Amino acid sequence: MKRTLGVCYYPEHWPEDMWAADAAKMVETGLSWVRIGEFAWSRYEPEPGRFDWDWLDRAIETLGNAGLKVILGTPTATPPRWMVDKHPDMFPVDQNGQARGFGSRRHYCFSHDGYREESRRITEIMAKRYGKNPHVAAWQTDNEYDCHDTAISWSDHARTAFQDWCAQRYQSPDALNRAWGNVFWSMEYRSFDEIELPNQTVCEPNPSHLLAFRRFTSDQVVRFNRVQCDVIRKYSNAPIIHNFMGRITAFDHFDCGADLDISSWDSYPMGFLLDRVNASDEDKARYLRQGDPDFQAFHHDLYRATSAGRWWIMEQQPGPVNWAPWNPAPLPGMPRLWAWEAFAHGAETVCYFRWRQAPFAQEQMHAGLMLPDDTDAPCRAEAAQVAQELAEAPTVGTAQAPVALVFDYDSAYAWESQPQGCDFDYFQLVFDAYKALRRAGLSVDVVPKTVDPTQYKLTLAPGLLTVPDTLAQGRVILGPRAGLKTEDMTIPEDLGPDVVGLKTRTTFVESLPPFAPMAVAGGGAFVKWRENLDGDDAVILCLENSAPAMVAAGTTFYLGGWPDADLWDRIVADQAQAIGLDTTKLPDGLRIRDTDTHRFWFNYAPDSVTHDGRTLPPAGVLWEKRT
Amino acid sequence: MKRTLGVCYYPEHWPEDMWAADAAKMVETGLSWVRIGEFAWSRYEPEPGRFDWDWLDRAIETLGNAGLKVILGTPTATPPRWMVDKHPDMFPVDQNGQARGFGSRRHYCFSHDGYREESRRITEIMAKRYGKNPHVAAWQTDNEYDCHDTAISWSDHARTAFQDWCAQRYQSPDALNRAWGNVFWSMEYRSFDEIELPNQTVCEPNPSHLLAFRRFTSDQVVRFNRVQCDVIRKYSNAPIIHNFMGRITAFDHFDCGADLDISSWDSYPMGFLLDRVNASDEDKARYLRQGDPDFQAFHHDLYRATSAGRWWIMEQQPGPVNWAPWNPAPLPGMPRLWAWEAFAHGAETVCYFRWRQAPFAQEQMHAGLMLPDDTDAPCRAEAAQVAQELAEAPTVGTAQAPVALVFDYDSAYAWESQPQGCDFDYFQLVFDAYKALRRAGLSVDVVPKTVDPTQYKLTLAPGLLTVPDTLAQGRVILGPRAGLKTEDMTIPEDLGPDVVGLKTRTTFVESLPPFAPMAVAGGGAFVKWRENLDGDDAVILCLENSAPAMVAAGTTFYLGGWPDADLWDRIVADQAQAIGLDTTKLPDGLRIRDTDTHRFWFNYAPDSVTHDGRTLPPAGVLWEKRT
Amino acid sequence: MKRTLGVCYYPEHWPEDMWAADAAKMVETGLSWVRIGEFAWSRYEPEPGRFDWDWLDRAIETLGNAGLKVILGTPTATPPRWMVDKHPDMFPVDQNGQARGFGSRRHYCFSHDGYREESRRITEIMAKRYGKNPHVAAWQTDNEYDCHDTAISWSDHARTAFQDWCAQRYQSPDALNRAWGNVFWSMEYRSFDEIELPNQTVCEPNPSHLLAFRRFTSDQVVRFNRVQCDVIRKYSNAPIIHNFMGRITAFDHFDCGADLDISSWDSYPMGFLLDRVNASDEDKARYLRQGDPDFQAFHHDLYRATSAGRWWIMEQQPGPVNWAPWNPAPLPGMPRLWAWEAFAHGAETVCYFRWRQAPFAQEQMHAGLMLPDDTDAPCRAEAAQVAQELAEAPTVGTAQAPVALVFDYDSAYAWESQPQGCDFDYFQLVFDAYKALRRAGLSVDVVPKTVDPTQYKLTLAPGLLTVPDTLAQGRVILGPRAGLKTEDMTIPEDLGPDVVGLKTRTTFVESLPPFAPMAVAGGGAFVKWRENLDGDDAVILCLENSAPAMVAAGTTFYLGGWPDADLWDRIVADQAQAIGLDTTKLPDGLRIRDTDTHRFWFNYAPDSVTHDGRTLPPAGVLWEKRT
Repeated sequence: MKRTLGVCYYPEHWPEDMWAADAAKMVETGLSWVRIGEFAWSRYEPEPGRFDWDWLDRAIETLGNAGLKVILGTPTATPPRWMVDKHPDMFPVDQNGQARGFGSRRHYCFSHDGYREESRRITEIMAKRYGKNPHVAAWQTDNEYDCHDTAISWSDHARTAFQDWCAQRYQSPDALNRAWGNVFWSMEYRSFDEIELPNQTVCEPNPSHLLAFRRFTSDQVVRFNRVQCDVIRKYSNAPIIHNFMGRITAFDHFDCGADLDISSWDSYPMGFLLDRVNASDEDKARYLRQGDPDFQAFHHDLYRATSAGRWWIMEQQPGPVNWAPWNPAPLPGMPRLWAWEAFAHGAETVCYFRWRQAPFAQEQMHAGLMLPDDTDAPCRAEAAQVAQELAEAPTVGTAQAPVALVFDYDSAYAWESQPQGCDFDYFQLVFDAYKALRRAGLSVDVVPKTVDPTQYKLTLAPGLLTVPDTLAQGRVILGPRAGLKTEDMTIPEDLGPDVVGLKTRTTFVESLPPFAPMAVAGGGAFVKWRENLDGDDAVILCLENSAPAMVAAGTTFYLGGWPDADLWDRIVADQAQAIGLDTTKLPDGLRIRDTDTHRFWFNYAPDSVTHDGRTLPPAGVLWEKRT
Repeated sequence: MKRTLGVCYYPEHWPEDMWAADAAKMVETGLSWVRIGEFAWSRYEPEPGRFDWDWLDRAIETLGNAGLKVILGTPTATPPRWMVDKHPDMFPVDQNGQARGFGSRRHYCFSHDGYREESRRITEIMAKRYGKNPHVAAWQTDNEYDCHDTAISWSDHARTAFQDWCAQRYQSPDALNRAWGNVFWSMEYRSFDEIELPNQTVCEPNPSHLLAFRRFTSDQVVRFNRVQCDVIRKYSNAPIIHNFMGRITAFDHFDCGADLDISSWDSYPMGFLLDRVNASDEDKARYLRQGDPDFQAFHHDLYRATSAGRWWIMEQQPGPVNWAPWNPAPLPGMPRLWAWEAFAHGAETVCYFRWRQAPFAQEQMHAGLMLPDDTDAPCRAEAAQVAQELAEAPTVGTAQAPVALVFDYDSAYAWESQPQGCDFDYFQLVFDAYKALRRAGLSVDVVPKTVDPTQYKLTLAPGLLTVPDTLAQGRVILGPRAGLKTEDMTIPEDLGPDVVGLKTRTTFVESLPPFAPMAVAGGGAFVKWRENLDGDDAVILCLENSAPAMVAAGTTFYLGGWPDADLWDRIVADQAQAIGLDTTKLPDGLRIRDTDTHRFWFNYAPDSVTHDGRTLPPAGVLWEKRT
Repeated sequence: MKRTLGVCYYPEHWPEDMWAADAAKMVETGLSWVRIGEFAWSRYEPEPGRFDWDWLDRAIETLGNAGLKVILGTPTATPPRWMVDKHPDMFPVDQNGQARGFGSRRHYCFSHDGYREESRRITEIMAKRYGKNPHVAAWQTDNEYDCHDTAISWSDHARTAFQDWCAQRYQSPDALNRAWGNVFWSMEYRSFDEIELPNQTVCEPNPSHLLAFRRFTSDQVVRFNRVQCDVIRKYSNAPIIHNFMGRITAFDHFDCGADLDISSWDSYPMGFLLDRVNASDEDKARYLRQGDPDFQAFHHDLYRATSAGRWWIMEQQPGPVNWAPWNPAPLPGMPRLWAWEAFAHGAETVCYFRWRQAPFAQEQMHAGLMLPDDTDAPCRAEAAQVAQELAEAPTVGTAQAPVALVFDYDSAYAWESQPQGCDFDYFQLVFDAYKALRRAGLSVDVVPKTVDPTQYKLTLAPGLLTVPDTLAQGRVILGPRAGLKTEDMTIPEDLGPDVVGLKTRTTFVESLPPFAPMAVAGGGAFVKWRENLDGDDAVILCLENSAPAMVAAGTTFYLGGWPDADLWDRIVADQAQAIGLDTTKLPDGLRIRDTDTHRFWFNYAPDSVTHDGRTLPPAGVLWEKRT
């Protein structure tokens, strides 16, 4: 597989006489791809129905003639000002019922039929015009679905569409009432049009109601994206991509990715560390200029799965950004490391965001490869280095990892609908497992719960709302909170866990405050969550109070709580020993990724790290042929 | 007095063929009472005016025939969906002016005349039908007034009703303007219909305005409840009960209780600990599975007073609940302890909530005596044990306690209207005094400020907005902040404290941040609040800076600040010594309650505790004949 | 210059038969001025167009006859209830779009034309009636502009006015689009009436948009005030004053002050310490009863500049107040110290707020010189002592300070529009510099950025949005974040800092979390902010990682970060040594202020402090002839 670099570029921000020089310099830097156009609707269609494509024609021509392949974005994340006059009710509505207006981006509700048609219309016009353009080698749909929490909208349009969704799913109000248990608190509906959105209730809404609304929301995002994909494919054979984000559980990226040819994501390791990673201040200080050592890899492994293996980085952080609580600069070498880490995890292409820092508007403090005065920013040299290294590096392929880790958006909706403990967070639960596997030096495939677990030596699947029977066919660690609910968010008749082969019932659960962990005999503890396991399965681990902590039936293991890091390390080590998996104990900040032929090492630590005879400087990258 | 157990049950949640077996098992468990019906309006009246009572008839018959006495609830806390179409403006409105909608419960505004009539209508229909039913042995009105902060509503209906309330109280706008001091900031009204509710002002509203609105709110709750009581009494002789909650100061429970035959309350010791008790993390960890050692007893003593001595627990926590920030399971033995503690404080009946955990909707994670799969939950055995013990235990009666502690809802409204220090909380002030009395092994009567203090050896009455002259006839500790205001929340002409016999003026007050307590000479400190006492009364305690901290005229004591725990312990010990009260110093977690003939000990500590020759295990209960 | 004392008084709050005695006692206390009338509109005009001036005539007569000079306030901060019926849309609107209603004060939007006319009307009527009254010796316009965050209003009136403001500034939508970079995210406007206010956007609005709105808001406040000044001057020769507040950056006090004869401000040292000063809990405990040692002085020096040197304290805290999170009482002596400190900084008059504590309404817990029962509050004796001392003290004049410190409201708007790090606060940046100068014993002139720096030995100007060329003519310390933007909040073509003479470019910036300061070689550190300085200027300070921290071209110094206290102390000491400024290292809490002839010492510490042979008790004030 040929691995390539690219960059995001906004010709509409710069005088036309700079374009050719920019393109030449991109090529000189070693870039192959350039993404354009995704925010330029006001320049494509300055007034309703009046179009101006000439400048875009020339921009594509200039970039293409320089040897660059163009990713052309549909501009639907930024409808122009006239659009909101045409559709005054198109705005997303927040949980308090307040419309979110014009003046930034993503000011549309996924359930607004009129805007979905506008989105299809502009996409079709672009696909017709550029579908066969030889320079347009890929498409991007919209931009960062759910950015700024825009997937969930509490609008009147959403309510009507949700009523339809419920009618299709449940067929009759009685069936819905039974499925949700609406007899409770006299919440029964006589018709689907009585259903309100589950915000603004006096106290918490029915979790079945919330879960249904979350599934509906995901379906609306997927539908919106599919409309664009379908119309592009009518006119173009170029692959279709969308750029996902980090730690987003508002819609099902597997469902959305199924309509794409390539999944991509926007990777901002330093912004994420301060904004989205649950780390101590000490760790935030340590990794301030590098990012969390596992957060990027996790999403690489996740989005490798969402479109059947093909994935990119569409936006790679090049320097300080503008949107995190604080915005420091990367440790020199990290933009190179981040790119190599993506390639080691199977990325086809890594695009830096953006070519040149814009001197105006919301992102003027967001670095690029070039400074606003057209001199080099620090990252440009690192990008050039990666390009040169790519040319000389061995070609590697993605190997299936020995271990699979299930990520299931439906479970995220479920536990966000009913956390039961205020800090129960499904993403964190899965990510904690991922970190433990990585500390042991393991490469991981993140997979949907429909995975065939017999393809892996070990599958971890914490926190699954419902457990497919197929999972129990492999060696799998389930729990906590696995199969304790039905599809409709009620307790199963036999209490659960509903897992084939297990003879254990969870008779009650406890959520635990941070100051009250429950120690596990032999080391480690349960935090946040613990289940009372009752039954005849083999007891693998016990709490210090002798209650079962982990049970097993054959190779199906069930964890009755949320392990802390020490307990995860024990569990991973025990399993590895049992099945002969080769693990190690990596120093803090050092990480490994295995490809088919080579092993890669990455040093996220701010200091040099030595392990197993190899020393890596800060931001160091190393690869060796696998033995 | 015969003490009994009961349980809350929802026949509408279960197949009818389970009812008889459920009833038999309740009886087998030793339960006498079963509360039903309070959330089933959508099953009573599925459409406006169309009723279905057959199932309820059969449910009552089945339960009654098994030997159970039924408490029948009016369903007005959960109006069905059609009701909100009929009265689209019936919702309570939050402080920001936003209506709180359908989809959970308590979605009505106490000031909505139309809904109050609906409430009377359904109550009358039920009272007519079941008023003479031999199995219906008690009534419950509505459910948990003010749950989810629903007593205060900022609706248009509330505004109009408040204008009427003001007109009745003040008779003329001029009188109101004078009483509230509306000349200040040109806030004068020319007519009552100019009065707005005191939300959404630019800065804080006039505290007199706020206090009046709080009193009005309480009157609205009382009136709503009274309508139901009056109509039930037309058709039934069974006692009328309402289930109050813990730490609720939104309405006057003495006023409301005066219309009831029996006060009851819903006791969730563990949920309260994490959600409503002001404790350190260390104490929360220590009492995580037991609850605060004084919180339950305080409310037992309080609600014993609100309906002239008759009181119940209507809902007793049986296991983990669903609504606290975290929801652990009780220490084994605690559900037994909690019941015995209630009986020791004079409860007639303790009902566990609920019979069987519901597998659906909002409370699916709320434990019951039975699991959703109809097997026993841990609490069932404890309930059965209590039932058996009750049969064998001596009959005891409630003795008047030696010490009275005044709780005054009007003072809570006042200081919530004008805290002056951001952490000044009337409930906490009274509760701190209660804890000190309990640490000294004393039994306490919580009383209204209309109490005759000569009936008690000592009366504590901290934080009274206004002080009745009668209080000074006994031995009483007043202050801080006692009699420093008029009825209308202005400063008295002579500054106050307006207390008969005292010759002290409070010339200024100070609220104190947590990092700046003021030490009292000899030990302890004032926290949060301190008054500058000026006058000729005897100085009992001084600050380390020599200013008076506590003064006295005869047996009227005035505290010029908020004592910390050490200072409260000193004060209680000094008073006890002066009047020959028998006190002790109980170990942390051990508590005592005296009945007429027996002394009870309760161990809330997670470990065994020895005191005075007696050792109690964790969750231990002990009683001995008083000597 | 004759220095005088005064007091704020509300004759409308008290029976008329008290007025004469009050006036006599004011004179006896040594007071010369009495401010009245600013909240009494409902008594001037009880109904629209019906006036009652008799009582005010008599009040002025009574006070004047006693020998007091009256400051008469326009009552426009408290429009009466009938006004909001006349103009139902006059309310200020909060950022969420919610109108802020009647029931307290300042319930008007500065952009409401109808209310501005009402304000002009009542002012003209008062100016006509009292403009030549011999007792009316000064005017106050309105009261505390922006109190309760009322300067910024997001109303429809504000939007329309803002569109006009934009049209006047930019002349064409295209010019505005270019200036703000609205091509970004397709935010281009086709006409000015498409412009919305920058609230309720999906994510952050364009910082150029926000900055423009902040400038517009300031202009609206200035215009509102100017209307009153203009109409008063038509009828009166008495000086016009407005009472500013502490730490307010919502409007440009230099612009507003230019329309006044005298700037004044309302000084509440203890409330400010707990509410507005960024201090540790340790420092808050230490200065709890004194206030921050620099906060008052800073505002004295600031408001001395806003009306060309003439300034007052219009409201001086006399004791506990009602509005801070906690409200303790002052250390005895502090009300005297605060007054003397104001005089040392050049105040003409210090008015205590208020004469007698009101027993009712919002400020009933706000101390005065008299208690509500008409006995002395502690502060009255201190006021009398100051009056007596004033009579005996030497007459001093304001000397120009050796050091200037630039305060620029426009920069405050800019960095509030784009902080880039969540704790970047322009006021704090300037105040940190001020504190360092004060710790070194220096007297300071706070000046606008139009200052002639050659008049000062040293000028500090941290954080200027844009840097006037004139500043570089003196010895000046600029940065961080100086000249890094254009007037319209975009990055300059050459990146900046745009400072005449400097050959440095800031190639990137970093905002830093509290747990990640960057150490400066030799001591101290950068916190919150750091710039990468690239260029040929002389390097004065380096980071420990060798990057330049401070550079200089001649006497123009540029700081590439936010210095912590240690680094500021080093910089001040180095500069002082370089230019022969006499500095010292004052003990914590001791402060110095130099007048033309005398040096004053003030002890804010809670203990006695000795320095340079002089010992001051707590709250001590000392002055000596300068040598």
